[in-house]
Amino acid sequence: MRVITLTTDLGHKDFYQAALKGSILTIMPDVRLVDITHEIPAFNTQRAAFVLKNAYHYFPKETVHIIGINTLYQEDAKYIAMRFQGHYFIGADNGIFSLILGEQQAEELVEINLMQDLRYLHFPLADILSKSACKIAAGGALSDIGVPIDQTLERVTLQPIFDKDMIRGNVIYVDSFGNVITNISKDLFNRIQNGRNFTLFFKRNETINQLSWHYNEVYEGEKLCLFGISNFLEIAINQGNASKLLGLHDDDANIIRVEFHNN
Amino acid sequence: MRVITLTTDLGHKDFYQAALKGSILTIMPDVRLVDITHEIPAFNTQRAAFVLKNAYHYFPKETVHIIGINTLYQEDAKYIAMRFQGHYFIGADNGIFSLILGEQQAEELVEINLMQDLRYLHFPLADILSKSACKIAAGGALSDIGVPIDQTLERVTLQPIFDKDMIRGNVIYVDSFGNVITNISKDLFNRIQNGRNFTLFFKRNETINQLSWHYNEVYEGEKLCLFGISNFLEIAINQGNASKLLGLHDDDANIIRVEFHNN
Amino acid sequence: MRVITLTTDLGHKDFYQAALKGSILTIMPDVRLVDITHEIPAFNTQRAAFVLKNAYHYFPKETVHIIGINTLYQEDAKYIAMRFQGHYFIGADNGIFSLILGEQQAEELVEINLMQDLRYLHFPLADILSKSACKIAAGGALSDIGVPIDQTLERVTLQPIFDKDMIRGNVIYVDSFGNVITNISKDLFNRIQNGRNFTLFFKRNETINQLSWHYNEVYEGEKLCLFGISNFLEIAINQGNASKLLGLHDDDANIIRVEFHNN
Repeated sequence: MRVITLTTDLGHKDFYQAALKGSILTIMPDVRLVDITHEIPAFNTQRAAFVLKNAYHYFPKETVHIIGINTLYQEDAKYIAMRFQGHYFIGADNGIFSLILGEQQAEELVEINLMQDLRYLHFPLADILSKSACKIAAGGALSDIGVPIDQTLERVTLQPIFDKDMIRGNVIYVDSFGNVITNISKDLFNRIQNGRNFTLFFKRNETINQLSWHYNEVYEGEKLCLFGISNFLEIAINQGNASKLLGLHDDDANIIRVEFHNN
Repeated sequence: MRVITLTTDLGHKDFYQAALKGSILTIMPDVRLVDITHEIPAFNTQRAAFVLKNAYHYFPKETVHIIGINTLYQEDAKYIAMRFQGHYFIGADNGIFSLILGEQQAEELVEINLMQDLRYLHFPLADILSKSACKIAAGGALSDIGVPIDQTLERVTLQPIFDKDMIRGNVIYVDSFGNVITNISKDLFNRIQNGRNFTLFFKRNETINQLSWHYNEVYEGEKLCLFGISNFLEIAINQGNASKLLGLHDDDANIIRVEFHNN
Repeated sequence: MRVITLTTDLGHKDFYQAALKGSILTIMPDVRLVDITHEIPAFNTQRAAFVLKNAYHYFPKETVHIIGINTLYQEDAKYIAMRFQGHYFIGADNGIFSLILGEQQAEELVEINLMQDLRYLHFPLADILSKSACKIAAGGALSDIGVPIDQTLERVTLQPIFDKDMIRGNVIYVDSFGNVITNISKDLFNRIQNGRNFTLFFKRNETINQLSWHYNEVYEGEKLCLFGISNFLEIAINQGNASKLLGLHDDDANIIRVEFHNN
């Protein structure tokens, strides 16, 4: 029994996510459906990519991940299925695939051609994407639902800037605990740090000089930074809401700056 | 394996929806449970009917839909099971069945008589309704859980008013994207329009003259109207929140007026 | 097929609860996962205990309940598995087990020793707790995952004060309908009442003299008190939000006082 996950901006109060689930169960009554989240802010492809990138690898290989963001029909709409890291991803060609891939390569990429005329679809998610996901979940190949393509719509994320002694990044996500996640990856940090001490600067005068392993290595109410579950540099407060208390938000133009030094 | 869906006002923070699920799984460990929504506003039967009417037909035939709104015991409480369009609906006799049926007829209607004394039930949903749903989901007939009845409590929805050149309706729902759904059905619209041009009037001076097929047929930020997934006339803004931006709410006494003309 | 339930403060917008589910499904693809709630306020062990205590007994015996509150690693972190009332509970040793047990005894209690070094776990929930839950759900014994212990960290809840004619309690929970649940249990109430009349006092001048069986035994908009689904004394308003209308909140220092009298 394969798993199909759902990552959408459909919310829980309307009938939309239920319609999506019903349409899948009608095709494949014994599939296992798991909600990753339906609370992506409306139309926010970057956010959907962030959440799904951090969640998908916890699922069994061969899981099919439906991405229900910006899937409505438009003039030149394309729907895509991708194999990556042994998982399948299905969604509209709106940049989400490039955001999930980052610097990496898809193992396989097809444009879905299950239907001739997409123009009159009011709810492609519950139609073409459900159908495609079920075919793959039933053991089908990507070549059964589409034709190979080389690339998808490119979208880029804000990348940190760095030189040999400094990294400058941004807040990209605030989680529901108020932990502030930046776009500075553990790989980049380690590479530039190279064993040296550092000072993390943010807001006007705030600094942190130490990397924690756990949120509770400092006293309750104290600020810290760490590489958390997401493998990105996180600013947090032990048992507190760092975003509120430190004034750091995910639409924040504020710069997070890390300076490395030898003493 | 049959599906049981849940449509309630129980929310997600309390233990109530979990208790409901637990009570079903205790009777029927391998049933497939799907949440339609637990976010119906408290006691809002009209809203529950709207959401369920738009969702149920996406599910496989023979699905059992539990409606958990206003199900508490009262003096003359009745609990009802209905077969309609090949689906089963189970809930309290509080008007919800007439709202789901509208002008249509139930295929079968019974008053549930699984228990002699309902008076001391604190949580009929997790008791009599769970039990009834499981019996049907296990392949039972409605006659196994109740006695045939002819009608349920009648409740009516606000209907649009129309003559040969005009329809006047109301907002009945605002979805989580801010799309504004009226009570003007596609059938009624098509019948009065009869191929003619139209002007849709709302608020003081707002008008729309064209029916779109998709939200993105107009520029981003522009208003449009269309028949969406719900088959009711919808006022929307491409990539925007029409409810907020246009000041249209689902408790809105404002009239939506469509005038048809030949030129 | 065994059931694993989840009670956490992880919310629905982040990837955390999905990661937890994915990690379980990777180990045990056909387990049945049920969310009790992911909306416990952050770090609120008391709340988690209240919700789970009221929900777990609706589930089939042998269900495994994962408690995802305050599970992060710290210096002297312990992870516990408990058998109680034929159910299994798995979580961190942060007081939650004593809150669930109250005056009662665990049937079996072990400290989980599946791993040698917990120090580098960033997400113990999706690692040690998932693994432990799956072993039990697969039919394992507690002794397969840990070593017997005698007790867990003790935490106490605010208890009502009483003498032979009076009980003084507090608000411990407000549900999503605004019903106000106190810490006065049905057992205690019955024992002190001993068939007598009573007056319930709260806020400045509010009183209730009668125990209802159902929310709708008084007129719409009228206040009442009853022992509801939770078996604790509840103050409610028929079809209304008692918390808002009466100004009673779950962080309320206000005293709920019941006086018993013979006339």
